[in-house]
Amino acid sequence: MGPEATVDLYREILACTPARRDQDHFPVLIYSCPSIPDRSRAILEGGDDPLPYLVEAARVLERGGARMIAMPCNTAHYFLPAMRERVQLPILDMIAETLAALRRRLPDIRTAGLLAATGTVRSRIYAHTFAEQGLRVIAPVDRDQERVQAAIAQVKAGGHDRATRETLQSIGAGLIEAGAEAVILGCTEIPLAFDERSVPYATVNATRELARAAVAWAHGERD
Amino acid sequence: MGPEATVDLYREILACTPARRDQDHFPVLIYSCPSIPDRSRAILEGGDDPLPYLVEAARVLERGGARMIAMPCNTAHYFLPAMRERVQLPILDMIAETLAALRRRLPDIRTAGLLAATGTVRSRIYAHTFAEQGLRVIAPVDRDQERVQAAIAQVKAGGHDRATRETLQSIGAGLIEAGAEAVILGCTEIPLAFDERSVPYATVNATRELARAAVAWAHGERD
Repeated sequence: MGPEATVDLYREILACTPARRDQDHFPVLIYSCPSIPDRSRAILEGGDDPLPYLVEAARVLERGGARMIAMPCNTAHYFLPAMRERVQLPILDMIAETLAALRRRLPDIRTAGLLAATGTVRSRIYAHTFAEQGLRVIAPVDRDQERVQAAIAQVKAGGHDRATRETLQSIGAGLIEAGAEAVILGCTEIPLAFDERSVPYATVNATRELARAAVAWAHGERD
Repeated sequence: MGPEATVDLYREILACTPARRDQDHFPVLIYSCPSIPDRSRAILEGGDDPLPYLVEAARVLERGGARMIAMPCNTAHYFLPAMRERVQLPILDMIAETLAALRRRLPDIRTAGLLAATGTVRSRIYAHTFAEQGLRVIAPVDRDQERVQAAIAQVKAGGHDRATRETLQSIGAGLIEAGAEAVILGCTEIPLAFDERSVPYATVNATRELARAAVAWAHGERD
């Protein structure tokens, strides 16, 4: 997984934990394992299967004493059903959390736009989950999707800049013009190069929703 | 340990790892365990002994498959000799790394200033290590040390601001006036509220030196 995205998830967890001192935070075991084979490539081109690596990473956390897993990679959620069959610990579902957050905020929403890695878009993991609740997911046209994928690669290489941000934000605006009522930041690299406060449309940050779900779980507010 | 400081160490590790894609990074297992009893309080007032908690945290990492430990808390290094007796894995010494970095950069340095938690200052962990190589460590006068400790508490509570930064930077300047040739950022919360590029004196960031040592270790450049 992208290590910057891993850090971003933990930052989001800290941001939604009320704390005045170290001891107010709950313990988190983070396995930053960037060597997991490329999830998009596996889905799109049949590259190395990341599943055994994802399962082994979950077991590292299990051996370390973790009791629940949050996985900061949207694309990896394509492998979630198979992981759940192979791993004892509960694993949160980032896609379902994002959908729930969107429906809390915009109860009448029918169409969501998706900014995500090409593997996430093509595998239709968002489209399937959303369709179960009657929502439609629209993605950028091919040429724009290529630009989104290039922006994600820039973030992973630590080379994103203002132009990267403007690209993502304007492709998001295009999704709104195409009928989306909100835009999903559906790749954990995207929030690192996207300023949600500066766009005039509704957004939902999948990383933040995963963090909220993890904090709620740690506080005993859910199974 | 402070969770923001934990994130900061990992950021420093990423910053000194040359990488173009996820798979260029090495795996890191991070145990953010903020419930470890306050290290300064234990040293100064005989509060709850953090040693068993530090040892247990090291064992969590060991069970998860870690092969080396970096501990992003200067004050906790007071317990390093006792930890090393109880833990199989090698544990880097942040204080020794900071001294080595300072000597590489300023070979003739005789006196270093220390901005650190009161527990670090009073336990003389920097002073002892530095004295072995003929260096003197000077700390702020009591009233300023109280202000440093208050600034650290502000960072831990997420409430630091421009005034916090100016306080730390001006107390650092006072150490230079008192004869220090460089200032050690010797508490992992301090770099979060200190702009090294904006001060006219030499600094050494203990967190960054720990990160450099960890990356060198991971790349097989040292035992």
